[in-house]
Amino acid sequence: MTQSFKPTLYLALIHYPVINKRGETIASAITNLDIHDIARASKTFGAKGFFIVTPVKDQQYIAKRIISHWTHGAGGEYNPNRQDALQLIYVVDTLDDVLLHIQNNEGQMPKTVSTCAGGHSRCISYDKVQSLIQQGLPYLFLFGTAWGMSHEIIDKSDYILEPIKGKTDYNHLSVRSAVSITLDRLLGLRS
Amino acid sequence: MTQSFKPTLYLALIHYPVINKRGETIASAITNLDIHDIARASKTFGAKGFFIVTPVKDQQYIAKRIISHWTHGAGGEYNPNRQDALQLIYVVDTLDDVLLHIQNNEGQMPKTVSTCAGGHSRCISYDKVQSLIQQGLPYLFLFGTAWGMSHEIIDKSDYILEPIKGKTDYNHLSVRSAVSITLDRLLGLRS
Repeated sequence: MTQSFKPTLYLALIHYPVINKRGETIASAITNLDIHDIARASKTFGAKGFFIVTPVKDQQYIAKRIISHWTHGAGGEYNPNRQDALQLIYVVDTLDDVLLHIQNNEGQMPKTVSTCAGGHSRCISYDKVQSLIQQGLPYLFLFGTAWGMSHEIIDKSDYILEPIKGKTDYNHLSVRSAVSITLDRLLGLRS
Repeated sequence: MTQSFKPTLYLALIHYPVINKRGETIASAITNLDIHDIARASKTFGAKGFFIVTPVKDQQYIAKRIISHWTHGAGGEYNPNRQDALQLIYVVDTLDDVLLHIQNNEGQMPKTVSTCAGGHSRCISYDKVQSLIQQGLPYLFLFGTAWGMSHEIIDKSDYILEPIKGKTDYNHLSVRSAVSITLDRLLGLRS
């Protein structure tokens, strides 16, 4: 691979199945700024697509209304940069739909990488993931909303990425921050 | 300095003076998720304080109502982690108030570092800033809202940090993403 090789990365933001504060499996609500911030970070760092995963039709409708405002409506005319970013978004029912979409796009199934704040016995380092994504396969990074993805998703994923940490015991970043930092660690450039 | 030395970092989110799409100087509105995301990232990476800068009293009132809900109201009981993060926030009128507050806290004025998406002839690298903050002085990082801080703030700052870039020409990150990535680049830990 040459220096200019660009890894094939996709992101999915999971709204179901996720867990709530009490550990129960729920479907979480769409957050407007997740849509904008994650799309803008995806575009900045060169991710190929950003999937919003929720089976709740009313929630899909809200997400699609927001996206349409910025890609085809008045928002797109007001701010073309936002239009470029939000064009990366797909709203789908399930994680299986994401995998199928990427398989159709890339001609092969992606490897999946779960992210989580709490740590896991299978966690691998950013350095390890950085070397994996250079090997040419498509990769799908999974991010949870609410109190995180349910274990059935995390356990099924091919890899689990180490939590993001600073020099403190506190690790309650927003998912918007976590996605931004993950993309920067894997794809960011510094002079 | 030993390995365990923690730099003394503060953040300020500037709502005035900032510029709008047409380059005019304006006061921007408070965004709820700026408050949460930047406080949570500050707490995660060990920043000592996060200043929200706006001279508009109605806007200060909104910011203080939100912060109070999570630090002293029902939000704090529901989510103590959020309480820990939002306790780092100060709402002040001007950048001069921020400088005075840090001088009172630290016994000396901080060095100021402006961030901007567009680049500047005085930009210095993340590696350079990382070595500067290890030297023991307090540092204040300035982030703009709307279309960025006005030139009078950027030009007066001691240093200007290089823009965050990926392998694309697109660099329209949200300020929430930019703060998160900056803190991670300067203070993040990786296994």
